[in-house]
Amino acid sequence: MRFLGIDPGSIATGFGVVERRGALVGHVAHGTLRPLHSAELPDRLAFLHREVAALIALHRPDRVVVERVFAGRSVRSALVLGEARGAVIAAIAAAGVPITEVAPQHVKLAVTGTGAAEKPQVQAMVRRLLALAETPPRDAADALAAALCGAQAGRLGALAELHGAFAARRSGRAHGRGIASRVVVRRVP
Amino acid sequence: MRFLGIDPGSIATGFGVVERRGALVGHVAHGTLRPLHSAELPDRLAFLHREVAALIALHRPDRVVVERVFAGRSVRSALVLGEARGAVIAAIAAAGVPITEVAPQHVKLAVTGTGAAEKPQVQAMVRRLLALAETPPRDAADALAAALCGAQAGRLGALAELHGAFAARRSGRAHGRGIASRVVVRRVP
Repeated sequence: MRFLGIDPGSIATGFGVVERRGALVGHVAHGTLRPLHSAELPDRLAFLHREVAALIALHRPDRVVVERVFAGRSVRSALVLGEARGAVIAAIAAAGVPITEVAPQHVKLAVTGTGAAEKPQVQAMVRRLLALAETPPRDAADALAAALCGAQAGRLGALAELHGAFAARRSGRAHGRGIASRVVVRRVP
Repeated sequence: MRFLGIDPGSIATGFGVVERRGALVGHVAHGTLRPLHSAELPDRLAFLHREVAALIALHRPDRVVVERVFAGRSVRSALVLGEARGAVIAAIAAAGVPITEVAPQHVKLAVTGTGAAEKPQVQAMVRRLLALAETPPRDAADALAAALCGAQAGRLGALAELHGAFAARRSGRAHGRGIASRVVVRRVP
């Protein structure tokens, strides 16, 4: 089962792909979609839509996980964020992939064990859980955390399982998934 | 020159197409895109994106006019509206059609002569200016008003010109544009 996590934003949209096989969850890819600062809003939205469609065509996720938005923001920023979300979510639905929305605290809980974790803690735990060579940028880390949360969904003791799987992996047992690791930062040409 | 006006919304998205030839502006089409109430948000957004792309392919507008959003709403409703706008605007930009955003008061001013007009006045004036047999529904009337506003843009005395054109038309002078009039209400199958 593949999970694509997306953290939509008008300036930077993080994405992260993980794959679950049995008790193991492996890293597939992550990155940040970044329209040019100089691009007009419509072109930024078309870029997001197109790039998300391309991500889905490339990685063929079984499910996309998008962080639910919390209300603590201004009307103006809610509108701008909504526009980015609309472009992204329309692309996902057009591809026929089911979408799960998860609350930010559930995402944090899934990767750090507390729903009140700060961003750096999320980044550090995502790196650790997925045994990445480098700490992912914030938006990509949030997206990977959402994907991890999706990979755990509906399973009791998911955290324990995740930790167990990666402890096993770190302890030297074969991971052997052959999953490519790739970091992509896309810009409008 | 063809102008497609769009009034995006998560429940109903109005659209209206007008064509300007010299001093005349004629009605081409209007209607409302209405995703099924029972559809999930992602499918509603994909529907909007797809239908707007289809409208553009069908009517080939030279410009799309979208009403700029005013700030007097809740964070929650701004987010929901932003999502609809994001899906719609991404489709327009993907089709390569230039977009103009116009302030609501400019739209009202363009069709009623006052920026403080109420909805029914806008509906009535749109009907009159475009010589429609029936008053268009509210969302479609707003979209037609936006399209009319676009058709006038950048021209001094635009209002006078519009009224003049239609007075001429009403007075019996040949209109002769052969522009089809069509009302479409689309629903998700």
